[in-house]
Amino acid sequence: MLEDKNQEKTSLAKLGEFGLINHLTKHFKMHHSSTVKGVGDDAAVISSSNKEIIITTDLLVEGVHFDLSYMPLKHLGYKAVMVNLSDVYAMNATAEQITVSIAVSNRFPLEAIEELYAGIQLACDTYKVDLIGGDTTSSTKGMLISITAIGSAKKEDIVYRNGAKPTDLIVVSGDLGGAYLGLQVLEREKQVFQVNPQSQPDLDNYTYIIERQLKPEARKDIPILLKELEVKPTSMIDISDGLSSEIMHICTQSKTGCKIYEDKLPLDPQVIATSEEFNMDSTMIALSGGEDYELLFTVSIDDYDKIKGNPNLSVIGHITEENEGMNLVTRANQEIELKAQGWNSLQE
Amino acid sequence: MLEDKNQEKTSLAKLGEFGLINHLTKHFKMHHSSTVKGVGDDAAVISSSNKEIIITTDLLVEGVHFDLSYMPLKHLGYKAVMVNLSDVYAMNATAEQITVSIAVSNRFPLEAIEELYAGIQLACDTYKVDLIGGDTTSSTKGMLISITAIGSAKKEDIVYRNGAKPTDLIVVSGDLGGAYLGLQVLEREKQVFQVNPQSQPDLDNYTYIIERQLKPEARKDIPILLKELEVKPTSMIDISDGLSSEIMHICTQSKTGCKIYEDKLPLDPQVIATSEEFNMDSTMIALSGGEDYELLFTVSIDDYDKIKGNPNLSVIGHITEENEGMNLVTRANQEIELKAQGWNSLQE
Repeated sequence: MLEDKNQEKTSLAKLGEFGLINHLTKHFKMHHSSTVKGVGDDAAVISSSNKEIIITTDLLVEGVHFDLSYMPLKHLGYKAVMVNLSDVYAMNATAEQITVSIAVSNRFPLEAIEELYAGIQLACDTYKVDLIGGDTTSSTKGMLISITAIGSAKKEDIVYRNGAKPTDLIVVSGDLGGAYLGLQVLEREKQVFQVNPQSQPDLDNYTYIIERQLKPEARKDIPILLKELEVKPTSMIDISDGLSSEIMHICTQSKTGCKIYEDKLPLDPQVIATSEEFNMDSTMIALSGGEDYELLFTVSIDDYDKIKGNPNLSVIGHITEENEGMNLVTRANQEIELKAQGWNSLQE
Repeated sequence: MLEDKNQEKTSLAKLGEFGLINHLTKHFKMHHSSTVKGVGDDAAVISSSNKEIIITTDLLVEGVHFDLSYMPLKHLGYKAVMVNLSDVYAMNATAEQITVSIAVSNRFPLEAIEELYAGIQLACDTYKVDLIGGDTTSSTKGMLISITAIGSAKKEDIVYRNGAKPTDLIVVSGDLGGAYLGLQVLEREKQVFQVNPQSQPDLDNYTYIIERQLKPEARKDIPILLKELEVKPTSMIDISDGLSSEIMHICTQSKTGCKIYEDKLPLDPQVIATSEEFNMDSTMIALSGGEDYELLFTVSIDDYDKIKGNPNLSVIGHITEENEGMNLVTRANQEIELKAQGWNSLQE
């Protein structure tokens, strides 16, 4: 579908590298006065107004992190930005700028890259971040996207992974496991399509979990909500590899243990129904699914009254002493040691 | 040579993504107090102490930007950092941090990635920059390196591309064309080797130009020198695509023309000798060769006395009114319009 066989499509070589960057970025609006100079010089310039600068970067590779047979390019552009903004919000910071570098093989015409950038632009406008630079080059195979996100925060507001203390409550935003199950549905439909290209998929029962996979939203709202609630987390991380892997990062860096309660894990009804359909354990999916881009954080038990009952937040457990280990407490009240079964892109 | 056939080599999958990042980065030293938090959280944290932040990013793709059959991995790591630092220096700024993301196919064992990081570490130590983050993932084919460099400068010290004025002098650091000719020599040796693997190349006559290609140095010293000389350039750019292409960027953004004098172009004797050997015009190579990572800048004519005779700097022409065009003045005193024949990675 994306092969450049259509003679009316514009080849990238015709436009050249500088032409392409100008063409793709000219409609982007700047949202922050801190963006002094964006695209068009050797480097971008940001004024920091005495805050700390937050920097994070992620690399997405076709065939490893995404499959263009069911991931529309516009969604891919949007998601690639989300993945990075999520890391900034996980520092309790505000995301303000991104750089975007792409490598694409000549199978992609200009119109495909425009679709990708339409998604990037939608993400920039929705989340109020400025595209300030990047690099565009050819690849010998496939597509690759490297994004760096830049944010800022007051020094005293930044939340690291290493501040959790025994008795702290473990809190997660939103619900878990949807993105992973959405991927399973899309993979199944791809296989059905390969066997019978005439089949019409009926995805009405999976709209939420497919959207979780194809168009995740980074939780910009959570640092804002926490500030309003006057709660500063003691530690925070975003859930990209799966709850289990992420809480283990917090515990390892904080030198603590934890107890996660199975019956507290927030699951959407579509996640429960689809788990059953796929004959999978929904708890395992919530623990190891990954790509939910929710925020996982710990708060002092003194803050419990401020967060309890908030529809955006679920208390799923608490931090323990390090020698108690990292455990899941099942519905049958058994303790099972957590294992990091998060998605490891190097094992693909 | 790099195929993972040796059973004693360590496969990347065995180490896993977090293990790999820790393994590769644990020996890196931090040089800047502005680096508050490096590798190991959702994002890195930098304190800005009221300076402007400079951000630049570059993507290097195997088979497009480098050929591992003659580019040792350690050199590749070093060069990948240089390419980015050069852009920071071209803003008249200090480079302080980098993030490094790599995608590698499973043909690379751990030892190969260690070599790459040894070059990155050497560059970090030599240039005093801190590795603060990145991403490590697999690719379906080949190797790809994405680096973002972060620097700082006082607002009033930053030099953009758009400040050149008619009568300003055009100045270049170092000499030109060596990196391109070094590549020609390496390509020739590769072809000789493919025909006769027993041949012993004699590269004694090409040591300088091969080093320009394989181990370029970013001109950290030039912004420092200019400060000592009390010269603030009116515009500046680094030479990655070739002198001709870069001076055209300055003129276009500054809305000026220029005159470059052929007899002023700084050429190393090895560049002249090798050009003759390859039957190439050394002026064309100096104008279009690229990858020299020298700095090209303009200064007010009032600053001429401060820079004249400096062995690091060559005055090669001057800025004119826009309607005079962008021209090369040949040794025969003919004016020829400059063309951007810089290396365009999208046309490969």
